[in-house]
Amino acid sequence: MKRYGLVSIAGTEEAQRVINVTLGKEKADLALLDATILNVYTGEWLEGHSVCVKGEWIAYVGPDPGDTIGRDTQVLDARGKTIIPGFIDGHAHLMDQLYTVAEFLRYAMVGGTTTIITESMEVFPVMGYEGVADFLESLKDQPIKLFATAPAMVSTSKRAQGIPKRTLKRILSRDDVVGLGESYWQKVIGEPEEYFPLFQETLKLGKRLEGHSAGAKGRRLMAYSASGISSCHEPIKADEVLERLRLGMHVMIREGSVRADLASIATIRDAGVELRRLMLVTDGVSPGDLLEKGYMEGVVQKAIECGFDPIHAVQMATINTAEYFSLDGIVGGISPGKHADMVVIPNPREIIAEYVISKGQVIAREGELLKSPRRHAFREKSRNSIHLKRSLRASDFAIRVKDAAKDVKVRVIDQVTGLVTKELIVPMPVVDGEIRQDVARDIIKVAAIDRRFSPGKTFVGLIRGFGLRRGAFASTKSWDTSDIIVVGENDEDMALAVNRIFELKGGAVACAAGRILAEIPLPFFGLISDLPVEEIAGKIGEIKKAVKELGFPFDDPLLSINTLTGAAIPFLRICEEGLVDLKHGKTVGLIIH
Amino acid sequence: MKRYGLVSIAGTEEAQRVINVTLGKEKADLALLDATILNVYTGEWLEGHSVCVKGEWIAYVGPDPGDTIGRDTQVLDARGKTIIPGFIDGHAHLMDQLYTVAEFLRYAMVGGTTTIITESMEVFPVMGYEGVADFLESLKDQPIKLFATAPAMVSTSKRAQGIPKRTLKRILSRDDVVGLGESYWQKVIGEPEEYFPLFQETLKLGKRLEGHSAGAKGRRLMAYSASGISSCHEPIKADEVLERLRLGMHVMIREGSVRADLASIATIRDAGVELRRLMLVTDGVSPGDLLEKGYMEGVVQKAIECGFDPIHAVQMATINTAEYFSLDGIVGGISPGKHADMVVIPNPREIIAEYVISKGQVIAREGELLKSPRRHAFREKSRNSIHLKRSLRASDFAIRVKDAAKDVKVRVIDQVTGLVTKELIVPMPVVDGEIRQDVARDIIKVAAIDRRFSPGKTFVGLIRGFGLRRGAFASTKSWDTSDIIVVGENDEDMALAVNRIFELKGGAVACAAGRILAEIPLPFFGLISDLPVEEIAGKIGEIKKAVKELGFPFDDPLLSINTLTGAAIPFLRICEEGLVDLKHGKTVGLIIH
Repeated sequence: MKRYGLVSIAGTEEAQRVINVTLGKEKADLALLDATILNVYTGEWLEGHSVCVKGEWIAYVGPDPGDTIGRDTQVLDARGKTIIPGFIDGHAHLMDQLYTVAEFLRYAMVGGTTTIITESMEVFPVMGYEGVADFLESLKDQPIKLFATAPAMVSTSKRAQGIPKRTLKRILSRDDVVGLGESYWQKVIGEPEEYFPLFQETLKLGKRLEGHSAGAKGRRLMAYSASGISSCHEPIKADEVLERLRLGMHVMIREGSVRADLASIATIRDAGVELRRLMLVTDGVSPGDLLEKGYMEGVVQKAIECGFDPIHAVQMATINTAEYFSLDGIVGGISPGKHADMVVIPNPREIIAEYVISKGQVIAREGELLKSPRRHAFREKSRNSIHLKRSLRASDFAIRVKDAAKDVKVRVIDQVTGLVTKELIVPMPVVDGEIRQDVARDIIKVAAIDRRFSPGKTFVGLIRGFGLRRGAFASTKSWDTSDIIVVGENDEDMALAVNRIFELKGGAVACAAGRILAEIPLPFFGLISDLPVEEIAGKIGEIKKAVKELGFPFDDPLLSINTLTGAAIPFLRICEEGLVDLKHGKTVGLIIH
Repeated sequence: MKRYGLVSIAGTEEAQRVINVTLGKEKADLALLDATILNVYTGEWLEGHSVCVKGEWIAYVGPDPGDTIGRDTQVLDARGKTIIPGFIDGHAHLMDQLYTVAEFLRYAMVGGTTTIITESMEVFPVMGYEGVADFLESLKDQPIKLFATAPAMVSTSKRAQGIPKRTLKRILSRDDVVGLGESYWQKVIGEPEEYFPLFQETLKLGKRLEGHSAGAKGRRLMAYSASGISSCHEPIKADEVLERLRLGMHVMIREGSVRADLASIATIRDAGVELRRLMLVTDGVSPGDLLEKGYMEGVVQKAIECGFDPIHAVQMATINTAEYFSLDGIVGGISPGKHADMVVIPNPREIIAEYVISKGQVIAREGELLKSPRRHAFREKSRNSIHLKRSLRASDFAIRVKDAAKDVKVRVIDQVTGLVTKELIVPMPVVDGEIRQDVARDIIKVAAIDRRFSPGKTFVGLIRGFGLRRGAFASTKSWDTSDIIVVGENDEDMALAVNRIFELKGGAVACAAGRILAEIPLPFFGLISDLPVEEIAGKIGEIKKAVKELGFPFDDPLLSINTLTGAAIPFLRICEEGLVDLKHGKTVGLIIH
C-alpha cells in the first residue's frame, strides 16, 4: 500500500535534481525572491528569504539563493511581500454542495487553497463502492492535491447502514484516502460492536478516525474519544473545544455554510492552552458563499479578525492539519523537500492571494486562474443513478388505513427549525380509508422513495412546519440514504415532482398545480450538477424563491429537505423503511396502535 | 500489516469493558485519586483530578471518579502528588551498552520510563536479519513497551554495507518497528541512489526516517533533510537545533553517555520558537551512568534544571516523541483510551518516581521494582556468533612488505581524541621484510578480523596515540562492522587477546606478556553480556584500569576501540578490507606506493 502520507521526494524521479538544486549544482525552475516567509515549524516570520523550486518541490529556502538561479529560472520578485504555505481544508464535503470538483476548484485555487481533505460519504448510500471510486477519480490529477476520507457509513435506513469491512478496506487502502469519515457519536457509543472493527481496520493502516460529537460531553464524550476517534469538527463554543483538547482529540474549528463557529470559539486563543491541535475547516461551502466569501483564505482572514495571531491562524490552516493527517512530509510548510505549495500575500494580516503556487506551478495570479482544473468524465452508471421501476402516480402517495377506524393517532415529523425536527403525536381523521393532507393544521405529506436497493420502495409519512400550502418539492440529494424525498400538499404534484426528477436523472424540483416552478438537474449520482457555480447559485436562488412562495418558512428549503433523512440531526427522521426515532435509535411506523 | 502506531482500544477484547468504566457502568481496576495531573495536550496542570484504569487502559480522567470505584478497585491516594505520563526515550541503543534488555529495564522501569524506541543496527553486521529478529524478540512481552528502528545499514566495510531491500521490508513490516534507523548524512548525500529506495520503502509504510547529521549545515543539511529524513539527535548547540527545526525536522536533544548536550542546547527555550518538535533522548546510557544518574527521569530533571518549564520538559519526553512516531494513539498523554502509563512524582519540579504505572499495573514503588522484566532466551546462533577458522598466531599479525625496500611510507591511524582519528603519513623501516611496532614513536599495530562473512579475514594496520606501551587490547564490539578489533604493542599478546575472545564467544580482553589482565565476556552476538548491570559496570572499570595501565591516554578504552570501525566519526577508520578514509569515502591500503 502506498501512503501519500509521509512519502517524500525520495521516491520520485526528480529527487536527484531537486537535491542538485539544493546543493547549487543545478538551476531552479522557479524562484520567489526576498520575501518575509512564515516558518510554521518554529512559528517565526523570516525576513529577506527566498524560495527556490525544482519541478514540484521546494529545493531551497533561505537568504542566499543566488547560485540556484539560471537563465531559465522563472523569477518572481517578492520583495515587500509575505509568503505562507498553501491552505489545507481538513474537512470538506465536495459532494454536498451541488458543484463538481472541477467547478469548485476554480474558486478554491485562486484563493490559495492547495490541499483539501473531503468526505466521500454522500455517494455511498446511492452507489456503493463504485460511486465512491468514481468520485475519488474526479479528485485525481488536479492542479492541487485532494484527499478523501472513507464513508463510515451511518444511515437512518437499515438497508443503507454500515459498510462491509471488505469494501472499507478497499477504499482505505487507496493512497488518496487518509481516514475513515465522520462516525456519529451516538451510533459509536450505542453500537461499538459495529464500529470498533471498522476503527481497528482504519487505525491498522495508520489512518485517522474522523469524529462527529455534536452535543456530546462528560462521560459520553470521554467514551467516544476513548474509542480512538481523534477529531471533531462539531464544537460550537470554546469550552467544548477545551473539553475535547483535554481528551487528546484534535479539534477542527468550522467556518462554512452549514455552520460558522469561529467567532464564538475564538476566545480559546486566550485560554492559555496550546493551539497545536486546532485546525480551521469549512465542513462545506455553498455555491453562494463560495462566490461571496471565497474559501479557506476567507476563513484564515476571519481567524485573524477574531483575534488569533496571524501565525496561529495560518498554522491552523496548514501545518496543524498536515500533521494531523500525517501529510506533513509533503505539505503544510515551506521547507526543502516539501511540495511547492505557497501563497504570496501583501502582508501577514491580509490574506489576499496575489500569487498561488501549487506543486511548483503558478496556478493563479491576482485572482486570475492560470491552470484549469480537470473535468472528470463520470461513468455511465454514475450518470444513471435514479432507479425506479416505473413513473409514479398520485395513488402511490395515498396513506391507506387497514382498520375501518374513523380517527387514528399518528406520528408527525415536526419541523421546528430548518434542521431540527421533533415528534408530534396527533389524531388524524380517516376518510375513505385514507389519511390525507390537512393544510389547515399545516400537516402535509412527506415520502421517501428508494432509488437504489429496492427501486420505488416508498414510505409515506406526515410533516408539520414545512409549510407548503400548495404544490410539492422533491430532491434526490437526501443525506445518509438512497432515497428521493418529496414533501407535498397534494399527491398529484408529489408524483409530478418525482417523475420530473426521474426524467432529469436526479435533481431538485418544485411544482404546483401540475406546473414545474423551479428545478436544478443533478445528473451525477443525483447529487451533483454539471453547471458552473454561478448558475448553480442562480438555480438555488430560484428554488428558494419558489418553495418559499409555496409557504416554506425557513431559510434553505434544499438543506431542510435533504436533511429529513439525516442520521445525526435530532430527532424524528424519515427513510424508505419508515420514521426513524434517533433519540431511541429505532424505526417506527406512522400510526400508533 | 499491523501498525501499533495509531491503534487504540477499539481492536482489543477489553474495549467494551473500558468504555463501560468510562460510562460508570462497570468498576475500575485501579484508581489514582485527587492529584495534580499534567495534560500534555493542552499544556495545563489540572488540580483535583483522578485517573481510573481498566485493564491496560485509562478509562476516566477527571474530578469526579466516584462511580467507577468499587470494592475490588485498587485505590492509590495521590492527594498532594503530581501525575505525569510515563517517559519515552525516542532514541536508545539497547545493544550498545553491554547489558541485556532485561537487566537494563530493572533500572529504566523504577525511574518512570514506560516506552523506549531503540536502534537495532549493532547486530545487523554480525548476524543479519536473524540477529535483528532475535534482538527484537528480546524486546517483546516486557512490563513496558519497547519499539525499534530497522538498521540502515551504513558500514566502513563494503561487505557489511547496505541492507537488502527485502530484508529491510521484512523488518519494517513488524508492528514493533517504527522507522529506519539513523542514516549518516554524508552517505545519504553521497549515495542517494543507494538510500532513497530504502527511504521510500520506509515512508510508504508510514514509518520514520531517523537522521544523523552531525556537523552538517547550510546547503548540505538542507539536501539531507529534503530527502525525507525527519529527525536528528546530533546537534550540540542551540543554533544547530534552530537550523534543523526551521527545515521542518524534529530534533532530539541528547543527554546520555555518548554525549550530554542538554546544557548547551537549553538556550533554545528562549529563542521564541515553538518547542513542539523537540524531544529528549539518551542515545544510550552506560552501565555506570545508569547506576549513578538513572535514565529518562534524570534527563527530564536536568531539562528542568536547565531552565525548561516543567510542562515543556515533560512534553519533550512524552507527547512530542509519541506524536513523532505516530504512537500518540496509545502513549504520551493521560487521557481515556490511552495505555495507562504514568509516573507519580512529589511535585512538578521533582522528577522522582514514587509510583510507576505501566499498562495499567503498578510496576515500581519508591524505587522498588514490583514487576520483573522477562529474560530472553537468545537463540543458539546468537550465542555462537564469533566465527574464526582457527586460533590466531602471532605471525597472523605480521605486516609483510613484498618489495625489498628498506623504508616505506605508510598511512597510520592517528588517535587524536578518544573518538576522532586523523591520517598520519610516516616513513617506517622494513626489517626482515616486515613493518613492526615502534613504541618509541607510539606507533603500534591495529588489526581487524572478520568474524562473519569471511571468518578470519584480517587486515593489519598501524595506530598512533592509542598509547599502549605493552600488551594488547581486543574487542568483538566494533561499530558498523563484523570485525574483532585488536590493538597491540606485540603480536603475541594480540593473538592471545583474540584467542581468549574466541574462547569466551565474544567479549573484550586486555592482556600483557601472555597474561590476561581484565576481560568481559559478551556471549550474545559478541555484543551483550549476561551479567547484572552492577557487575558489568565493575568489569568495565577493571578493563579501563588495565588498559590505562598499559598506556592508553583517553577516558574510555572500550569506546575508543569499538569506534575504530565507526562509519560516522572522522575520519581514518579500519575494517577487514583495509583503512577507510571517510573524508574521501574510499578504502585504502597501509602502504603508500
